[in-house]
Amino acid sequence: VNRHSPVTRTAGPVRVVGTGLLGASIGLGLATRGVDVVLADPSPSALALARDLGAGRLPQPEDAEPALVVVAAPPDVTAAVVAAELAAHPAAVVTDVASVKAGLLAELTASGADLSRYVAGHPLAGRERSGAVAARGDLFAGRPWVLSPAPASRSEAAAAVRDLVLDLGATPVTMDAAEHDEAVALVSHTPQVAASLVAARLRQAGPEAVALAGQGLRDVTRIAASDPGLWVQILAANAAPVAAVLRGLRDDLDDVLTALEQLACEGRGAPAPGARTALARAIAAGNEGRARIPGKHGSAPTTYAVVTVVVPDRPGQLGRLFGDMGEVGVNLEDLHLEHSPGQPVGLAELAVLPAERSRLETALRERGWTVHG
Amino acid sequence: VNRHSPVTRTAGPVRVVGTGLLGASIGLGLATRGVDVVLADPSPSALALARDLGAGRLPQPEDAEPALVVVAAPPDVTAAVVAAELAAHPAAVVTDVASVKAGLLAELTASGADLSRYVAGHPLAGRERSGAVAARGDLFAGRPWVLSPAPASRSEAAAAVRDLVLDLGATPVTMDAAEHDEAVALVSHTPQVAASLVAARLRQAGPEAVALAGQGLRDVTRIAASDPGLWVQILAANAAPVAAVLRGLRDDLDDVLTALEQLACEGRGAPAPGARTALARAIAAGNEGRARIPGKHGSAPTTYAVVTVVVPDRPGQLGRLFGDMGEVGVNLEDLHLEHSPGQPVGLAELAVLPAERSRLETALRERGWTVHG
Repeated sequence: VNRHSPVTRTAGPVRVVGTGLLGASIGLGLATRGVDVVLADPSPSALALARDLGAGRLPQPEDAEPALVVVAAPPDVTAAVVAAELAAHPAAVVTDVASVKAGLLAELTASGADLSRYVAGHPLAGRERSGAVAARGDLFAGRPWVLSPAPASRSEAAAAVRDLVLDLGATPVTMDAAEHDEAVALVSHTPQVAASLVAARLRQAGPEAVALAGQGLRDVTRIAASDPGLWVQILAANAAPVAAVLRGLRDDLDDVLTALEQLACEGRGAPAPGARTALARAIAAGNEGRARIPGKHGSAPTTYAVVTVVVPDRPGQLGRLFGDMGEVGVNLEDLHLEHSPGQPVGLAELAVLPAERSRLETALRERGWTVHG
Repeated sequence: VNRHSPVTRTAGPVRVVGTGLLGASIGLGLATRGVDVVLADPSPSALALARDLGAGRLPQPEDAEPALVVVAAPPDVTAAVVAAELAAHPAAVVTDVASVKAGLLAELTASGADLSRYVAGHPLAGRERSGAVAARGDLFAGRPWVLSPAPASRSEAAAAVRDLVLDLGATPVTMDAAEHDEAVALVSHTPQVAASLVAARLRQAGPEAVALAGQGLRDVTRIAASDPGLWVQILAANAAPVAAVLRGLRDDLDDVLTALEQLACEGRGAPAPGARTALARAIAAGNEGRARIPGKHGSAPTTYAVVTVVVPDRPGQLGRLFGDMGEVGVNLEDLHLEHSPGQPVGLAELAVLPAERSRLETALRERGWTVHG
């Protein structure tokens, strides 16, 4: 199951409080590695579902004290549950998975809880579906998991939570709570608001208009299906950082609107100097921002040269192509296949280091391939 | 290839002017059905690529006059190219694929062109990638294709374009040009602006912030990678309807911003009555709008089985995998690579016909590959 390391680092029992998507996925991932996971949830039916899924077992009277407690409760009760777990299990390390950190840490500090055994956490993983039913043991594989130790956190506590993160296949990222909250305002909370606002425009649309919806609209609005109750908690907890990002977005939107209003009048004879430039600037800025999103597993965006090869749709042709590439001695950095069933040919787009491009093109042409640069 | 009807309705020769994504996809779809497709493009390299892909052939001196001309040129030259094609081919029916219709029809009417043989069209299909390289003959399968006949359009012309649409597996939808433009402002142009604005916020973000990006951000900003030159043309051509939708979006955004600013002050003791309700209303409105998007109709004709193979991150491993697939004699229908730099392995997801799945899994395991079903 774990291809990264054969060693399970986490020592059980691990108590998981809250068996929604994240809690049940953590339980599944640990239980699959043989860690003893004890589940808790105020909802008996949620608890039973997580248990039946294999996310862990129910508590028994003779249970040993947990070594680690993971609080996967809703955001607005996380501080209270963390404080209660720290008090109830005085030897355990406690962590949480809430998506906003600064307010939580302030609340816990004010509560007088023993924060030497606490390390705040936030796995950047999720699905548009919620609940244990959507849980997967590999939900965190390859995803960042932010750890924000409090000033009082002991290094052994940080090490234990780090072990949990590594066992679940995630990448631990240590960040200051405020820095984390600004980052998620940008990469998570602002996209949620934007998706909801775009989707909200559809409420008054006629059926013939929404029938024209394509993949673009579906992608932009997918997360607009998210739970309002959860998102009010998240946005309220991170209000100032989200407002700061949205103010910038509103200013850009006003520029686009001004340009469009000028262009709408242009048709009636009014000149619209600079309006097209303003629109081009907005779309190009989006290109630039979009290009900053790293590859799926955190790789830096690297610019490769792309060589496009026409591949006949017959068994073995791709194998022949890669065999030829191997003979040429060019390493493939990335690959994209364009292929539709029933079409006589497909295209293989081979990403290689720019310095290798022309040698590869020549060698493939020599071997009979049709190559487009 | 065509599951809807065994009969090809379109009579060739069909002249496709413009061999970008849409033109080349139309050529591919028709050529696969045995229709004689003649390609034209001002760019010789774009033309050669489309020809090599099987989207059609180059014109010959002895060619018969086309029965149908499809203008798939950039939006801002579509009117001129349609008028030129109507004049050059006085017996042909002419259609286009531009994404804004009212201004185009006004321009053509003013030009004095013979609109009895012209029917405006707009296939609601596309990809964030452009050019013939991204073309697919099944691009239009199950998608709406809006037809906006001009008052002068003859019914035989409308029938010929309708046949083209049906042959490509799309669903003809007749709409008034103004009604069409308002609909695409809502379902296509506004999502594009929103995606670009969200992505633009990422330009100034630190690498540690963008490293936290997840699927939500990726989906919301996918179309932010679109071509600025094309989108300036589209937005400028549909300025008034897009501005009307964006004004409503900006008002909703201001409500969210006001609520967030109240909540940011709440932490410092100021009450924020109604702020949470305003946020909940915005997210719930998004739920409601999102739910109005109909399910995908008629798409995904074939469901492939996916075989996931663990690929060690060493040069030549992918070539070895495809070589082995070639020996086994299983044809690859689609492929997705999961890169994990810094991790010792990656995953190749191989899409094959369901009937081939178990044979491929067995054969790859015999050859030493780690395979997940």
